[in-house]
Amino acid sequence: MAGSSFGTLFRITTWGESHGEALGVVIDGCPSQVPLCEDDINEYMDRRRPGRNAFSTPRQEGDKVEILSGVFEGKTTGTPISLLIRNTSQRSGDYSNIKDVYRPGHADYTYDEKYGFRDYRGGGRSSGRETSARVAAGAVACKVLSHLGIQVYAYTRSIGEILSQPTEPNYENRILLPSAMLDPDADAKANEYLAKIKADYNSVGGSMECIIKGLPVGLGDPVFEKLDANLSKAVMSIGAVKAVEIGEGHNVSTMLGSENNDSFYYEESVVKKSTNHAGGILGGISDGSDILIRAYVKPTPSIFKEQKSMNTAHENITLQIKGRHDPVVVSRASVVMECMCAITILDELLLNMSARLDRIKEFYKK
Amino acid sequence: MAGSSFGTLFRITTWGESHGEALGVVIDGCPSQVPLCEDDINEYMDRRRPGRNAFSTPRQEGDKVEILSGVFEGKTTGTPISLLIRNTSQRSGDYSNIKDVYRPGHADYTYDEKYGFRDYRGGGRSSGRETSARVAAGAVACKVLSHLGIQVYAYTRSIGEILSQPTEPNYENRILLPSAMLDPDADAKANEYLAKIKADYNSVGGSMECIIKGLPVGLGDPVFEKLDANLSKAVMSIGAVKAVEIGEGHNVSTMLGSENNDSFYYEESVVKKSTNHAGGILGGISDGSDILIRAYVKPTPSIFKEQKSMNTAHENITLQIKGRHDPVVVSRASVVMECMCAITILDELLLNMSARLDRIKEFYKK
Amino acid sequence: MAGSSFGTLFRITTWGESHGEALGVVIDGCPSQVPLCEDDINEYMDRRRPGRNAFSTPRQEGDKVEILSGVFEGKTTGTPISLLIRNTSQRSGDYSNIKDVYRPGHADYTYDEKYGFRDYRGGGRSSGRETSARVAAGAVACKVLSHLGIQVYAYTRSIGEILSQPTEPNYENRILLPSAMLDPDADAKANEYLAKIKADYNSVGGSMECIIKGLPVGLGDPVFEKLDANLSKAVMSIGAVKAVEIGEGHNVSTMLGSENNDSFYYEESVVKKSTNHAGGILGGISDGSDILIRAYVKPTPSIFKEQKSMNTAHENITLQIKGRHDPVVVSRASVVMECMCAITILDELLLNMSARLDRIKEFYKK
Amino acid sequence: MAGSSFGTLFRITTWGESHGEALGVVIDGCPSQVPLCEDDINEYMDRRRPGRNAFSTPRQEGDKVEILSGVFEGKTTGTPISLLIRNTSQRSGDYSNIKDVYRPGHADYTYDEKYGFRDYRGGGRSSGRETSARVAAGAVACKVLSHLGIQVYAYTRSIGEILSQPTEPNYENRILLPSAMLDPDADAKANEYLAKIKADYNSVGGSMECIIKGLPVGLGDPVFEKLDANLSKAVMSIGAVKAVEIGEGHNVSTMLGSENNDSFYYEESVVKKSTNHAGGILGGISDGSDILIRAYVKPTPSIFKEQKSMNTAHENITLQIKGRHDPVVVSRASVVMECMCAITILDELLLNMSARLDRIKEFYKK
Repeated sequence: MAGSSFGTLFRITTWGESHGEALGVVIDGCPSQVPLCEDDINEYMDRRRPGRNAFSTPRQEGDKVEILSGVFEGKTTGTPISLLIRNTSQRSGDYSNIKDVYRPGHADYTYDEKYGFRDYRGGGRSSGRETSARVAAGAVACKVLSHLGIQVYAYTRSIGEILSQPTEPNYENRILLPSAMLDPDADAKANEYLAKIKADYNSVGGSMECIIKGLPVGLGDPVFEKLDANLSKAVMSIGAVKAVEIGEGHNVSTMLGSENNDSFYYEESVVKKSTNHAGGILGGISDGSDILIRAYVKPTPSIFKEQKSMNTAHENITLQIKGRHDPVVVSRASVVMECMCAITILDELLLNMSARLDRIKEFYKK
Repeated sequence: MAGSSFGTLFRITTWGESHGEALGVVIDGCPSQVPLCEDDINEYMDRRRPGRNAFSTPRQEGDKVEILSGVFEGKTTGTPISLLIRNTSQRSGDYSNIKDVYRPGHADYTYDEKYGFRDYRGGGRSSGRETSARVAAGAVACKVLSHLGIQVYAYTRSIGEILSQPTEPNYENRILLPSAMLDPDADAKANEYLAKIKADYNSVGGSMECIIKGLPVGLGDPVFEKLDANLSKAVMSIGAVKAVEIGEGHNVSTMLGSENNDSFYYEESVVKKSTNHAGGILGGISDGSDILIRAYVKPTPSIFKEQKSMNTAHENITLQIKGRHDPVVVSRASVVMECMCAITILDELLLNMSARLDRIKEFYKK
Repeated sequence: MAGSSFGTLFRITTWGESHGEALGVVIDGCPSQVPLCEDDINEYMDRRRPGRNAFSTPRQEGDKVEILSGVFEGKTTGTPISLLIRNTSQRSGDYSNIKDVYRPGHADYTYDEKYGFRDYRGGGRSSGRETSARVAAGAVACKVLSHLGIQVYAYTRSIGEILSQPTEPNYENRILLPSAMLDPDADAKANEYLAKIKADYNSVGGSMECIIKGLPVGLGDPVFEKLDANLSKAVMSIGAVKAVEIGEGHNVSTMLGSENNDSFYYEESVVKKSTNHAGGILGGISDGSDILIRAYVKPTPSIFKEQKSMNTAHENITLQIKGRHDPVVVSRASVVMECMCAITILDELLLNMSARLDRIKEFYKK
Repeated sequence: MAGSSFGTLFRITTWGESHGEALGVVIDGCPSQVPLCEDDINEYMDRRRPGRNAFSTPRQEGDKVEILSGVFEGKTTGTPISLLIRNTSQRSGDYSNIKDVYRPGHADYTYDEKYGFRDYRGGGRSSGRETSARVAAGAVACKVLSHLGIQVYAYTRSIGEILSQPTEPNYENRILLPSAMLDPDADAKANEYLAKIKADYNSVGGSMECIIKGLPVGLGDPVFEKLDANLSKAVMSIGAVKAVEIGEGHNVSTMLGSENNDSFYYEESVVKKSTNHAGGILGGISDGSDILIRAYVKPTPSIFKEQKSMNTAHENITLQIKGRHDPVVVSRASVVMECMCAITILDELLLNMSARLDRIKEFYKK
């Protein structure tokens, strides 16, 4: 099926395998007149690169994005923006030891059954490298959102048992700290912990959060296209994510109604809420407070310990994976989360413009 | 926007408010030749009805579905199936006390901002009653799936702190027990607990699970249309759901790779997995083992305690809700989860048919 | 497949067979605040009714539309509008003589092959009656367009060789005259001609035109979603239509560039064109002049002459159709054309709102 | 809006301007296991190239396609196929004389209004060059169709008044003859005629046809997604097309029912039709006979005669276009028509697989 597109009015279509010549994305439906250059995008690519801390893979992908279409004299034209990311450092042969085996936790087996064969060189489309195209597209979405006064921040919330929950969050730390946490102390502990995990040929999971600020009231739709439903799909479509929460998330299951309801009040001509357990969404529609999303990420499936598995000839085997893999996914995944949320939000902003006759009439008066 | 449709090839479009004349759903893309009658659907409607336990609202909606099109001589024709559910017991006036107020935890405020006004009689499309149309459509999906050897079971996992996790699950209990739990002991405890909650004019959250059995390998797509992403959207689009998990869910964030990876092995000509932490999905594609989904549901926002809020004139007020409301949502929501998962799975089954040239050639030989 | 929906932001989903209990349509994505009542719609239904001239089928369907959802206190709510049209006069048994035969020019054979069986009572979804739901939805679209200063008029251009091309078109005549032509003289001739055709147990084709006035510049998209491409699909999806033209249509194939190009000029602060061969669309985008579409309609396939055909047992047979059928389709089809064009145009108006950053910023300032 | 995609299950997304660095297309949903190499595609690109006859623009684009993803070891993988076409010969400065003017028959004015500015170097997305990406994608669709026994042939039917209608069509001539006609005599006359047109600084229209052979019965859907509706959209979305016909096309408007109906008969175990006025489609669904589509193409709008127009400052001006332009579009457009029809047909083949429960059960038995 045609499953490589995301979004309705602001729609991205990604392509490319980890070991082909290049990856890329076509952004269709980006409004015209948005100032855009390659550096705007490369800034986000850098946050996704391996080697942002000592515990990610030493392979330097050096992802630089080329804009091939849709920008003229420094501004978007309203027509498709094609972004290209060359694969510069894939080494053929690296992955030949996994050609005939089904790695635990990977998509090797499901691909072979679905498609009848697979590109065995590094996971094809199910490689984490696929997310580089999402980040390129998300950078463009963030650029558009910034012109509308909307900020999207995603960061690492935990690595294994190590939690980062600073009371005064400094969102710049998600870029500056190797773990993409906001709390420098937790970051230091996480790095120490990951060194041990790596030395033990193992990996560990983590969690990440995204906060969206400045959103108008009214985004999202009451039934299937709820804002939270679409954000959940966006985030759950990131490779290693196994759980998604809005606001209080799984905590709500043991809360009382009197605890969980957020009270509205009016103060200085502004509608406010005493709490934000709902995470900024009521009935699938944004309520003007911060949107809060949390995601839980599984441990990197590529570990260097010996594992039991099966080969393509259906023989039970013992397997030892070689190569270069991060002991934790979450630090690099958080920027992907930020980008997927930004893409979703921008699409919802555009979709919301047709909700009311009074606003449509006003629009077409111009 | 047009957000009342769900699915690509098997697509449902729901309509109707809790206080209009009727609700309904149009099912488009249902394969021809499926035996179908109204009783097939009413069986599912009964599981969603209020009054299934003493702690749900005493209002008896008596939802009976009428098939208006798409069935001829007892079989689906391949053309749209229109299902109608009349609203028989709405009492006008019941909700007039909420006309000018914004109830905490409800969509009143977000509707007014999005659409410029709202049907104040019971929540409009954000009423729980909207889900009756989903259940009607899901019953049809389940019918089709049963012809393909696939079973979908959803049930209550917890109410407040009371967990139901029987070692030998009897899925019939989800229909027989008032709480929709599988464990009769937990069900008894839950009912006792809910009596207290209700007497205290309060409500409480819960959690529910869905297990899908008999699925072939290969459903889902590697990138945005991952099977888990689409299931998450399906489940998160149910009104009160605030968190969704696949397999181990949020637990993965503290697990090691060596714990979380499921080993493949081959036994008696069948591919098996030693564990199923992944919940039956690898790289977004079904792996042939059971699909496991969990969702967390917030407490009913309509509580009868006094609450602070705001009215439409932007005055801060104290509010006391009247009417009939369940102290817990999860028992009735679990059948909605079952139905949304069934709809998603059937759509994925149809979408997967075009993945391979060899199978397409075989198909068109006939 | 799910092929009963049309449109992206303003999306309609139709359902129902000619011999079921009812037909209907769900309109999703209609903006809120549009004044709407059943009479607004029934006015359009009346233009589609049989018996509008002496030569259409004497069966009086008496199509009255019921609004089941989406309207509150006389205005649309922004949520789905469900419209129901009861089948009041279908007589069972009428069509039993065609149960086992494949009528020439009908979809009997293709349905049987596609779906494995068919509702033989009157054509199922391929009955002309299916278009009643389109008209109901189109009436709503026209209502919205009228608030935006846009008028859509479709009328009969020819019946057989009889052309109606008045120099001063009075668009009201499309409602008043039996043939739906604009020229009363041509209408009189057509009625006389049709009496002969009917007496000869035969039928004849015709053509119809649609003109859209008041459209802003900028609707439509440069590549696949060209305004003309979408209008063509809309019109070609009407049962008997076999050709669609924009502006000069098939004449362009023998024209010179110097004849066909329309010159722009500026007069009294308005951009004008000296001619409108292009039919109001350049590069797939509306240019502010009138949109001109023409369609050619085949003769009614149900004729009462003896015809050769085949039965479901694959025997060659001679067939004589009985029943009630118009000798010409075009008079009743023109209102369907008007409605399909209105639906398309409204969807394009909503889609166009997200084209430019400057206008999006202006929109969200409010 | 996001209007650069076409198709549902086999979906293409094109990008690129005539004067950017490159153009391209992402093909999503192509089945796995299709043998594919760059030469398969370049063969089609060659048919679209300028200079195929003496009367097209002398600019040699030398379009060669690079496959960037989706093919592994010579076969499609089932994941997106990204195709890149570099712009090698655009000369900057060539088009500066049209920067501030609105050319008649072009999209300059509509672009400026829709997007607020435009890439003035050669028409941006509304350049004929955009169709190169469609041809690249169509070549892949044709490759898949050939494995299913389906052939698609499009060719020039007329240039100005010169008709090519050989009784024994040799479809190879569409590739061999400069005009893409099937009749060598008509081709010779057309070339002579075009020399005169060109010498007169003018251009002329034409028409083209597409025949599709080998299609199974059952493709298409009864209502909005009729096979003819989708083919019409596909063909009308090609830049200069102003009319589309199925089977008898506009002739049906003056035909009698007794003339236009095609009789079925059964001969040597095969269902046949005595005639094919319907063009292979009944009720929107393929009937197993040849599909026949015709399109009419306007004269090239870029002519070298003096023309009246308007500039961006809204002054009335006289304009003389320079540069390189074909005096007729149809010869190069016919391969685009072939490709758009092939893409549409392949998509319909995939969509049709989910129509019947018996076939779905058979499919999943494997």
